[in-house]
Formats: sequence, C-alpha cells, structure tokens
Amino acid sequence: MAPGVLEELVGDGAIRTKAVELVGDARKLVKAEAASHDVVLKTFRLLIADLCQQFGGGHPGGAIGMAAIGVALWKYVMRYAPHTPDFFNRDRFVLSNGHTCLFQYAFLHITGYRAMTLDQLKSYHSDREDALCPGHPEIEHEGIEVTTGPLGQGVANAVGLAMAAKHLGATYNRPGFDVVSNHTWCMVGDACLQEGVALEAISLAGHLQLNNLTIIYDNNQITCDGSVDLTNTENVNDKMRATGWNVIDVEDGCFDIAGIVVALERSKESVKPTFINVRTIIGLGSKVAGQAEAHGAAFGAADVANMKRQYGFDPEQSFVIGQEARKFFQDLPDRGEQYVKEWNDLMEDYAAAHPELAAALMKRIAGELSPKWKDLIPAKESFPGTPTATRASSGLVFNPIAKELDSFVVGTADLSPSVYMGWPGMVDFQHPDRRPACGINGNYTGRYIHYGIREFAMCAVANGLAAYAPGTIVPVTSSFFMFYLYAAPAVRMGALQRLQVIHAATHDSIGMGEDGPTHQPIELAALFRAMPNLLYFRPGDSEETAGAWEAAISAKNTPSIISTSRHKVTQLVETRREGVARGAYVLVEDEAATLTLIGVGAELAHATGVAARLRETRGIVARVVSFPCQRLFEAQPLAYRRDVLQRHRIPAVVLEPYAPNGWERYADAGACLKRFGHSLPGPAAYRFFRFDVESLTERVLGYLDSVTGDELLRREFVEI
Amino acid sequence: MAPGVLEELVGDGAIRTKAVELVGDARKLVKAEAASHDVVLKTFRLLIADLCQQFGGGHPGGAIGMAAIGVALWKYVMRYAPHTPDFFNRDRFVLSNGHTCLFQYAFLHITGYRAMTLDQLKSYHSDREDALCPGHPEIEHEGIEVTTGPLGQGVANAVGLAMAAKHLGATYNRPGFDVVSNHTWCMVGDACLQEGVALEAISLAGHLQLNNLTIIYDNNQITCDGSVDLTNTENVNDKMRATGWNVIDVEDGCFDIAGIVVALERSKESVKPTFINVRTIIGLGSKVAGQAEAHGAAFGAADVANMKRQYGFDPEQSFVIGQEARKFFQDLPDRGEQYVKEWNDLMEDYAAAHPELAAALMKRIAGELSPKWKDLIPAKESFPGTPTATRASSGLVFNPIAKELDSFVVGTADLSPSVYMGWPGMVDFQHPDRRPACGINGNYTGRYIHYGIREFAMCAVANGLAAYAPGTIVPVTSSFFMFYLYAAPAVRMGALQRLQVIHAATHDSIGMGEDGPTHQPIELAALFRAMPNLLYFRPGDSEETAGAWEAAISAKNTPSIISTSRHKVTQLVETRREGVARGAYVLVEDEAATLTLIGVGAELAHATGVAARLRETRGIVARVVSFPCQRLFEAQPLAYRRDVLQRHRIPAVVLEPYAPNGWERYADAGACLKRFGHSLPGPAAYRFFRFDVESLTERVLGYLDSVTGDELLRREFVEI
Repeated sequence: MAPGVLEELVGDGAIRTKAVELVGDARKLVKAEAASHDVVLKTFRLLIADLCQQFGGGHPGGAIGMAAIGVALWKYVMRYAPHTPDFFNRDRFVLSNGHTCLFQYAFLHITGYRAMTLDQLKSYHSDREDALCPGHPEIEHEGIEVTTGPLGQGVANAVGLAMAAKHLGATYNRPGFDVVSNHTWCMVGDACLQEGVALEAISLAGHLQLNNLTIIYDNNQITCDGSVDLTNTENVNDKMRATGWNVIDVEDGCFDIAGIVVALERSKESVKPTFINVRTIIGLGSKVAGQAEAHGAAFGAADVANMKRQYGFDPEQSFVIGQEARKFFQDLPDRGEQYVKEWNDLMEDYAAAHPELAAALMKRIAGELSPKWKDLIPAKESFPGTPTATRASSGLVFNPIAKELDSFVVGTADLSPSVYMGWPGMVDFQHPDRRPACGINGNYTGRYIHYGIREFAMCAVANGLAAYAPGTIVPVTSSFFMFYLYAAPAVRMGALQRLQVIHAATHDSIGMGEDGPTHQPIELAALFRAMPNLLYFRPGDSEETAGAWEAAISAKNTPSIISTSRHKVTQLVETRREGVARGAYVLVEDEAATLTLIGVGAELAHATGVAARLRETRGIVARVVSFPCQRLFEAQPLAYRRDVLQRHRIPAVVLEPYAPNGWERYADAGACLKRFGHSLPGPAAYRFFRFDVESLTERVLGYLDSVTGDELLRREFVEI
Repeated sequence: MAPGVLEELVGDGAIRTKAVELVGDARKLVKAEAASHDVVLKTFRLLIADLCQQFGGGHPGGAIGMAAIGVALWKYVMRYAPHTPDFFNRDRFVLSNGHTCLFQYAFLHITGYRAMTLDQLKSYHSDREDALCPGHPEIEHEGIEVTTGPLGQGVANAVGLAMAAKHLGATYNRPGFDVVSNHTWCMVGDACLQEGVALEAISLAGHLQLNNLTIIYDNNQITCDGSVDLTNTENVNDKMRATGWNVIDVEDGCFDIAGIVVALERSKESVKPTFINVRTIIGLGSKVAGQAEAHGAAFGAADVANMKRQYGFDPEQSFVIGQEARKFFQDLPDRGEQYVKEWNDLMEDYAAAHPELAAALMKRIAGELSPKWKDLIPAKESFPGTPTATRASSGLVFNPIAKELDSFVVGTADLSPSVYMGWPGMVDFQHPDRRPACGINGNYTGRYIHYGIREFAMCAVANGLAAYAPGTIVPVTSSFFMFYLYAAPAVRMGALQRLQVIHAATHDSIGMGEDGPTHQPIELAALFRAMPNLLYFRPGDSEETAGAWEAAISAKNTPSIISTSRHKVTQLVETRREGVARGAYVLVEDEAATLTLIGVGAELAHATGVAARLRETRGIVARVVSFPCQRLFEAQPLAYRRDVLQRHRIPAVVLEPYAPNGWERYADAGACLKRFGHSLPGPAAYRFFRFDVESLTERVLGYLDSVTGDELLRREFVEI
C-alpha cells in the first residue's frame, strides 16, 4: 500500500474515523481475493495487447498501465449495475483520457455488460459499422457516461456530473433518504492535466468543494513526444492542493490494488474533491514499457507473444479470458442488481414519506417539463413596444421559466450584469459553508452558477450536467457570443452527444460597438451554422426571441445558441414566434415585389428599413424574409423553402454584417463583412461599414442596377 | 514597502547581491521623487474617470486601481523609448486585461509617445474613425505590442515574447554583447488567471524557466459578477510556486510605488519567471471603490466631481494634467533616446566584433528570408510518386526550410510523431539546465518547441513569438486539425493582428479514420474559411502541399492553416504548385465537358476518380477543378474565376466530406457531410458515408439525372 495514505488527514475527527473503518473493510475484502489479482491483471493486459494487435493499431499502453486501477474501481469501489446500466443512482465514471477506451470497454465486457460481448470487444478498430468500440468512448453505448477524446474536457464533464449529483441530492434528499448519492470518478492522463479546460474545471471544483468527485491520475509521465519532463515539470500535487483539492498518492499503481482501493474509498470521505496521484508504467510488460512508443501503436506480434510467454500464457492463443478471471468478476451483475433493488426500495419508502418530492423527482428523471411552460413566456403584445436589446428580451422570455421550472440550471462566465439570465429570488449554486465576501450566499440547491471567467469549462461542465440523466437538468450557459469561440470545442461535444444545453450568447454583431474587433463576431456564425445538430438562432426582436427560446427548449436532443444583441433594436409588428420555429419566414409579403430582402437578428429592422426606403425613394417593391435559424429552415419541406425565398422568380439579397459564407445557399447577393470589425459605438460602427439603412439602400440599388444587364451575375453570389 | 520582499531569496548568492544593489538604487531613485507621487496618482486617476465620463462608458475601475503600478513601470523600471517606439531591444509590455486599456493609453500619452496626443486620448469610446484609443489595445498603434481583450491570451502572448527574447539572445548574444536582453512585463487581472489559456501558458513558462518574464497581478478581487470569492478561492501564490514561478507580494498596490518598483526590479534577477501579486482597490476614490460596479461603467458626473473635490482638484475642470505631473514624466523621451543610442552603439561594436552574426541578426530584424528559400522545396518530380500522406508531404516540403532558415521556430502540441515537423539535427527549445528524463536535451537556441498538450496556448504563444518583431521569427505550430478548434481564438487573434504564423494541421477529413467523430473535422473548415485574413489550405498531394507552403511563407501579414491528411493519397500528374497560389485551378480541362467536378485536399483524387468513371461507364465528360484555398481564389480577377468554374456554361459539383456551408458560392451541387463522422478505418469511413469513388459517381449521376428536368434546381444548391 502507498506509504502515508493512512496517515494523511482527510477531514474532521468523525469523518476520519469513518474513513479508517471503510479503509479497513476495503483492505480486508481486497486481501481475501488477492490470490487472483495476478492472473486477472495479466489476463486484462494481454487482452488489451491482443485487441490492438489484431488490426495493428490503437492505444494499448495507457489501458495496460491502468489495469490495477480498473480492478480497484469495477471490482471493489464503484456502485453500478451491469444489467441495469442506466440505474439512476449509479456512480458515474468518466474516461477523460478517452484514447485509452479499451480500458473501459474491456471492463464493461468482463463485468457483464450485456451489449459488450467478446465479439463486440473485438470490433475495436474494425470496419464493423455497428461497433460498440469506437476509437473513443461514445455516450450512445451502454456503460458510457460521456463521449470523450478531445483532451481535458472529460474532467470538466466529470465536474458537471458531480455538480448534478450535489444539486439533485441537496434538492431532493431528506433525512434517511439519500436518494441521490452517487460518486463521480474521473480517470485522467498526463495530457488532460495540461489542457486549459481541465485546469479551469479543477479550479471551479475546488471552489465548490465537490467532495463527491475523485480524479484518478494515471501518472505514467509519458505523452506522445516522450517524457512529460519535456513540457511539464510542475509539482502537480502542490498545485492541486493550492486549488482546493485533497491529494492522495499511490506509489505502485501497476500492482497495488489494495492501495488503490484504500485511496479511492478514502476519497469518498474527504471534505474536498480528491486527486489521487497513481504512479503507473505505460505499456507494462511490453518491450516499450515506460516509453512513448507504447502510447499509440500496437506492440507488434513478437512483443505480444513475448508478453504472453513471460506471463505464462500460450503465445499461440489470443483474447483469452480464463476461468479464474471470469470467476473473479462473475458476481458483479448480481451485486449491481442488489444496488438497484436497494435504491428502488428506498425510492418506494421515499415516495411514501415525501410523496410530492418523489413525484417531482420522478418527473425530472422522466425529462418532463410542465406542459404549460410556454404559457410562462410573455405574449407578443406584452413585450415593450419600444426598442429593446434582444439580450434583455432573452431575460424577459426566459427568466420566468427559469424561476418556475427547477429543471433549468442557469449560469454565466462572469457576465451576470450583461446577459440578463438572473431572476428575482434566485439562489446561487455554492457550497453551503461558502460565505462570499460580496454577501451573496448560496447552497447546493441553488440553480444559478457563477462559473467564473472560464467559458470553455462552463460549456463542458454544462455537458456534464446535461449528461447526468438527460432531461433531468437542462443547463443554460451565458457569455458574450465571441467567447463561445473559447467554448466551441465543448459546444461541439454537446452537439455530438445530442445533449440539450442552451447557450445564451449576447453582444453579437458589430452593433455591440466600442469593445472593437476582438469582441465583434464576424465569422463565428459560419462555424455554428455549419456545426451538425446545433441550432444557432439570431432573433430579430422580443417576439422572435420568444420563438428562439421555444424552439431551443423544445429541442430535447439538440443544443442551441441564442445569439442576441447588446444594443436596442426596433420591435417589429410583423414578427411571429411560430416563424422562428421554421427557421425563416416571410415577414413582409408583396406579390408585386421584384426583390427579396433577407434580414437577420439584430439587423432585421435594417431589412425592413431598406424595403421602406426602396419603395419611398424609387418605387421598388421588396418582400422581406426574416431568417433567424438556417438549420431549422433546412428541415422544412422544399415547397415551403421555395415559397419563402421565391428565388425562381426574383433575386434575394441578404443583409448581415457577418462573413457571407453559407448565405450563398439562400441569396443571390449579400451585404456582408469579409474583414474584422472596428472599435466604434454601435451606430457609428454600422455607418463605418456602410451598414446603416441609407448606405444599405444604396448598395442594394447598386446591385439591382448591375444585375439586369449581366445574366452571368445571376449564377454567382454577388457581394454588394 | 511590502513586508518580506527583501527577505525572500531569489536565486544564488551573486544574483541576490546584485538584486539587493538594484533594489537599493531603485528605492533611492523613487524616494527622491516621492513628493510628486501623490499628485501624479491623483492626476492619473481623475484623467481615467474623466475619459470614461465623457461618453458615459468604458472600464475605469481597473485602470484607476493600477495607477501606482503604471508609475512604477513607466517611470522607474521599463526600458522603452517614446520617440522610437519600435526600438528593437525595448522591454515588451502586454496588457492582458485589455479592457483596462485606458491605463496604457494614458501612460503612452503622459510619457511622451507622439501619436498619443491628449486629443487622441479623448477619442476613447468616441465615434472618431481614426482613433488610437479603441476599446481594447490594438497592435497597429504606437506603443502597443499585441492586441488584447479576449482574456487570458495576453499572458500566452507575453510568454511568446519572452521566449522570443530568450531565443534571439541565446542565438545572437556574445560575451559583452547582450544585444537582445529585454524584459517582458505582463499585466493581468483576476479574470486572466481563471482562463485556461493563461493557465496553460503559465505552466509552460514555469517549465521553460523564463526569468525574463514578469506577470503583474492586479489583485483587486473583483470581477463583473462581484467578489472573486464567488468563483475562485484557490491560493494563487501557492499555485504559481507549484508551477515553477517566483512569487513576490505587494500589499499596498494603490500607493506604494517604491514597494512595487522593488518587486519589479527584483523580478528581473530571479532564476524563474516571477509573479507579483499586487493588492489594489478597483475604482479607488470613487463611491463604488472595491465593488463590481467600478469595473465596466463610468462613475457618473456627481461621483467624478466628488473625487476631484476630495483630491483637491477643481470639479469644474476635466482632463487636467498639471505642471508637476507633466514634469514628473518629462525626461522619459530623452531617457528613451539614450537607451536607443546605447543599443545602437552596442550594435555597432557588435558588428565590428561579430560581423557575420550581426549581419544575420539585422537580416532577421528586417524580416528577410534567403531569396533562395523556394529552391529548398523539392521539385514535383522529386516527390515519391507512390501514395503519400499529405502530412508526410508537409514534412518533405518544409523540413529542409526549417533546417536551413533560422527564422522558423517550429513547435507541436505533443504530436511530434504524427505531424512530421521535426528535422534531422534539430535542437529543442529548452532551458539549458533542463535534463529531460527522456534524454533529449535542448537549450534556448533550439528552434523546436514542445508546447505540451496545450493547443490554445501554443497558438497564442506563437502570436507572441511573431509579434516580438514581425518577420524576425516565423512560428510554425502543429497538431491535429480538430484541435485547432481549441486554439481557434488564438488563430483568430493572429489573423486580426496580421501576424505570420503557419499552422500545420494534420489528420483532416473523415479519412483520418478510427479516432472517430470527436476527431473528424466536419464543420471546422467553415470557420477557418470564413475567418478574415486567414489562409486555409487543403492541398491534394505533395505538389499542392509545396504550393501551400510557398503561399503561406510568402504571406508576410497573414497566418495560414495547412490542413493535411493522416492517410496516404494518390499523387496526381496534373497538380501544380502555382495553381495553389491562385486558390483554385483547372486540373483536368476538356472543352466537351458537361460538368465540372471540384475536388479538394485529401479527396482530390476522388474527383479525378469520379471523372474517369463517368467517362468510362457513361461517356460523360467532366472537367476537374482543384480548389485548395477559397480565400486566395477570391482574390483572383473575376475573369479567372469564371474561367476556372465555367458555371455560366455547365454545372459544378463539389466533392468534400465536410459541411457544405460556403461551397454554394462556387458549386451548384455538392456531395458533402451535414452530420458528424463515424469511427471506422479511413476507407471504411469513406464507404460508410458513400464517399468512395463508386458511390460518389452514383451520386453525381443521380444529380445529373435530376437536374435536367427542373430549372428550379439550377437556382438552388443541391445536396447529393
């Protein structure tokens, strides 16, 4: 066992006593079966080597190095149910170093997850299209909590999963009824601890004192380039302690299963989140053990055969899981069902003792919102008719929903005064003992999260909150739109995992003004409009903002970005929230029109303004189409799309001070921006870029003049 | 003075003695002028309050809180020359908390930078289009080293600036000739220290022992949401020490100029980078001092008037810089010219003593490459004719250049074995005392940087390397293409600042295979193609890879991404590097063609393959256009563009397994991807998405069949 583990204090006296008891139990349990550990570890390690060898690729080293950690987790410590994988109160396990996915796949197989047959296990790196063993773990598959791979994000997901458990526990648990009490385990490698998103999330978790979270550091000191010393020579334990974490060392992570179990059990009794620093050897047993070469390539047939000989296995046989190893894990499905039964019994008693709470929790678990949630949104005529910033509209629309419906857990990357996502009476999500100097108090029942200036972690944590039990929590994040570029890799992972997270992004367009080109998003919309399974909305006024929130809340398997203005925009008579649900709709129709103007978001009123001026000054009749969401429009029937755009009849011109990329699909010409912005007050910025109504009218007229003579232009997108 | 500052050891005996001397000198100097400090600080603080008040906006609080730090820096510590702002060996100052830009603008004015007149200073938040005082500092303007604003990135820029100085110093300095010896000062607020990119860069700087770098922490414990305690309760000093930094505390950062000077001077004598933790009060003197309200809004006329009364100033007057304050700073331009003269004299002697080195350095400073650099690139016929991964082609093209030309400083986010950016005989950039366990040694002359698994910091550090003296260093970064999404905010800042940084991005397209959807970039190209002033290349084979590097190296004011394949691709007879320089070109012409196929990057040979099949199986003649770079194509004359695409005559179909967004500008139809990828071996992934040549041919035939009858389709982009 690791020296010093038992000696280190983890909390106050009572907790310490409990910890020592637990540790004693764990050690006894582990010792009773220690005779099997050797063959189990060898079996597991050879299985990994074989799985990589079969197609000559993959990541064997890490998984092999972590074998003893896996035995400690799946056999002795984690609460889970192989035959009821979605058992609500199960411990959550996140493999943040997702490239070592074989580690998890192999344990899913050997612990009895039904879908993960040996045949499926062998699908790793095969061309089987329905394989359950992709190159990185994917949430769609049994036993996988979150999709990982992009490094560092798993740590933030785990923080979100732990926050979800804290929040639901604080909200629904009652004395004698710890109905939500699971632990979150997060496996990381050297790489995850270098990624900024993990460092942000670690800092947040330390602040929030998430003692239901354990990070297990597979400290093998090897990355692709070689020794970690090449790039990182910090004292990671000291750094974690400075960040508010409990730290436990395990010196022999390759073999000391008992030591690992003790560390894992003790982490559950800490008053802080725990970081277990486990020294391992990458690719243990192979010729490249301890070297970078063990990381991302199969060992080669000769080396694998040699490993087998060394381990006393038959070098001619592959994928061997012998009887002793099978037997070692065979009780786990039954143990799992026992956990499930205990929880079901507990829930039954809870329902009797606290019927309303239990009903509320079950409704949350089923992902049901009150069917009347749309009634909480103000009707069009209730919105102020005066110019209103759409970020303020977002507040008007969503604050009543957030206030009433517990499913929504709202947060911000330190922009509360700017993003309008707070509501009267809201409680902050904080550790209950926290007494912030500013006087705002909170506790774990709170549904308003101060994420800090950590946009990337915010969105990755939100993915974790959403993944805890999809539908139970609907996270809402908020920041300036520009800073969603910091968070884009997490927004992407939310879209890939079909997690409903709503991002309230404010200060879009050059209209945000003085902050200048670093803050004016020119090309960001192009990314988010292209990102699969993401809805990017730019609503044009309060009514359209209502439509955007309605659509986002209705999209149970799709994240959304609702992108709003810092500045006040005109409220239009013609806007309709139902139109937003179709992506684009005709705002102003006129059969005599010779032109369609496409208006978007904060500049929608620019389009109606240009239409009015064209008519007044030149007698030109233009229809106006409002186009808040490209992806929803793409989902409409062809007939609807043609009817809205009318491009078979008349040309369409889009007006949006963003990069034009992608608008070519819907328009024949566009007044867009192909350069970065400029620091000027909003109205001056519009003038500077000739995006005020008068200049835009001139530009449209110039286009109309140019287009008549030259049929070629009708085949090409024209920048005006 | 801060308690304990003089007592703390900063290095070995000799260094300590020198530090104590310096500190003594500094204290004497500061004391002699202490009588003026009070009025100088008041003048500065009122000036900031007035500048925000004039248009009722801006960020006054931070700048006011940092006043004494500014006096210590600009008056006593920094080496710079207001009348020769680009003096090569000047200290670099980075305002990472860029929203406090008035802090820097006001010091630029008062220390005598000629462009920064009082009139210009007042342009902050005005609608003056040629203002020198945008909402965040911009590199284009005198005295600004890097554009900041997006939080945390300034820290990484500063790390890059410090690395540049270390590297150039190690390469060109000789005993008695410290021709590159400047220090880098980086101002940060509470926010920057929460951002992941800063945490990554801090870890790297600690590892590299960059003792020419000082971070000055404006520790006012306030962010937009209120107290920092809301989100961050870590022990920042311990965390910095654990990360390899020297830490100095200054308790009274609002008034103790001498204490700050001592801390700054001592930081220059540390063997590590130094973190100076300066306690300040945001918005000192105003009614909202110490509160979040002081952060991002003007104080209001009454409060400003009250400040003036308290300070003994006339409340009726604004923008007052009295004689004593003017006098206090008046010698700085002359002192600056003295620094310039000393350096020029040193360079003259250096040129005499080391003529070749001096000539080489001057050539670097002038941003000149050897005119023969293109000759280092293999000719088309020298490339292997067998299928070659374009990532390997990147190595074949660029390694000889990196080897020969010292301007290129190459690095990777821990993917050396995968990105092919290393060359025989290269030396790592490492602290000379570093002895990595892996046996690779380096020193500061090294031009190969192991950035660690820190993609965002890598690209932000690269911006700093490039900004040190544009053209002197051309940084090259490398990682998988997907992970440039982590780095996208830094890629953007490079584009905005017109900094030449080349990003070698490998593993693009679904062809990268088994790593699956987390690693297969579907929508990323849409972002980078839309990003202003960025060249995004997808070369189709080795010859086109040569063209991409040629274009990227030639683009002195534009960053590039060269996006290459993991897998081997066919080498095509028809490819021409000159074609890449035009963005797109005709690969296979045929006047009888009834269709244009657009091929791109790793799938270019798919297009030629489809063309061949169409002809063989159906007698349909297709031209083929290779389209490696949209932005370069946009820069071509209209006649060229029409000639390449021929859309007035025949339809064009693009084949690229990326999101189609943006291709609608160039094509009438496309075989693209609107969903995330799938974990399968590359060829199987192509088949799965019907992107193998046979399936693509069928899809194109289907399109051709559908298009004839329906003229409508010719106005709409068709997904096939």
